[in-house]
Amino acid sequence: MSGTLYGVGLGPGDPELITRKAARLIAEAEVVAYPSLEGGDSLARSIAAELIPDGAQEIAIDIPMTVARAPAQAAYDAGAAQIAQALEAGRDVVCLCEGDPFFYGSFMYLHARLAERFAVEVVPGVTSITACAARAGMPLAARNERVTILPGPLPEAELRARIEGAESVAVMKVGRHLAKIRSVIAGLGLLDQAVYVERASLPEECVLPLAKAPEKAPYFSMILLTKGADPWL
Amino acid sequence: MSGTLYGVGLGPGDPELITRKAARLIAEAEVVAYPSLEGGDSLARSIAAELIPDGAQEIAIDIPMTVARAPAQAAYDAGAAQIAQALEAGRDVVCLCEGDPFFYGSFMYLHARLAERFAVEVVPGVTSITACAARAGMPLAARNERVTILPGPLPEAELRARIEGAESVAVMKVGRHLAKIRSVIAGLGLLDQAVYVERASLPEECVLPLAKAPEKAPYFSMILLTKGADPWL
Repeated sequence: MSGTLYGVGLGPGDPELITRKAARLIAEAEVVAYPSLEGGDSLARSIAAELIPDGAQEIAIDIPMTVARAPAQAAYDAGAAQIAQALEAGRDVVCLCEGDPFFYGSFMYLHARLAERFAVEVVPGVTSITACAARAGMPLAARNERVTILPGPLPEAELRARIEGAESVAVMKVGRHLAKIRSVIAGLGLLDQAVYVERASLPEECVLPLAKAPEKAPYFSMILLTKGADPWL
Repeated sequence: MSGTLYGVGLGPGDPELITRKAARLIAEAEVVAYPSLEGGDSLARSIAAELIPDGAQEIAIDIPMTVARAPAQAAYDAGAAQIAQALEAGRDVVCLCEGDPFFYGSFMYLHARLAERFAVEVVPGVTSITACAARAGMPLAARNERVTILPGPLPEAELRARIEGAESVAVMKVGRHLAKIRSVIAGLGLLDQAVYVERASLPEECVLPLAKAPEKAPYFSMILLTKGADPWL
């Protein structure tokens, strides 16, 4: 009988923001899998490190950081094949995911390759959006307010139109798109209502008004914007 | 010296989906506060029940379930006054919140009343959105996809316009608005791409294609919709 694939959300980075269910599954794991930067570190592994049992088999999926999708797809193909081998041998596999597995998570690519052949259970995690809001002291939405989540790489005109028509906004994956996004928000007269958050819940966390954000942002950064009378209320 | 107010997200309902940080804060609490239905049960308290220490002071904030906002505002005023009294006496207060405190959470109303006078720390939680997606086996967004979060009570015409212009959609607080929302989604030809999830992660959970959803939905229900070629991929 084949094993079960667990896609386990780890939350934004602070190991204490791992759920009790995710912590239990990791601590009991025979096999753990995780994405890592090609030849280098894995943020997912580092978040869960203290929980991974000694002697667990580890499957690191090296993801090339290119804009072209084919190399990453090939990496997920190879990772999925390794995971399938463990599952076919009757071993459960716990796949570690930053944030939440189904919310801009790398686990989605493994899920697409494996969910038809194997039993899968997804354990949701704290997303970076609510983690950033918590650290910024910025309530996101109440009552009948809408929330719009936009990836930073979207074209400038689309960002402008979407932010203009939105109420609360979270712009994910800011990184090298910071100048473009800031210019769009400033152009809409909303700069004073926007907050920049970098690496929420990690030791190197940084929370600033968007107007004071640095010129260079890491991939794990976000802009939150609310249009209420007082976004800090 | 005044105590600290902790706004602690409990996640969608399964006590194992509480984060380790929230669990620690609750287990150490001298004072816990939570919203409850007027004169009745508190879902938040029931999620955290096993963690609340014997002998902890409990502040139940009875929220009248009316469309008018004034009675609920008065209830939060009274609850905030009780919490302030404990904080002024130097005791920390752990406020229990279903889901995430800043994402359609009742804690936002306490935060608005207390954050200027007291130290506040918000501990993010797993939202119902990713919990529903996990249970439905439905990835929400990858790469440069957008996510739109809409409250079910919005007017029909606004729901239609927002869903039409969106990619992935989560409609929160479905409840008595189910027939209206279903009609909007069917009218846009998207019924087969929508899933209905009720009480995600609780024992009475229910996951169905929207076309097969019951006529009556509880407040804690959601509709997820993705427009990809195959939303189950």
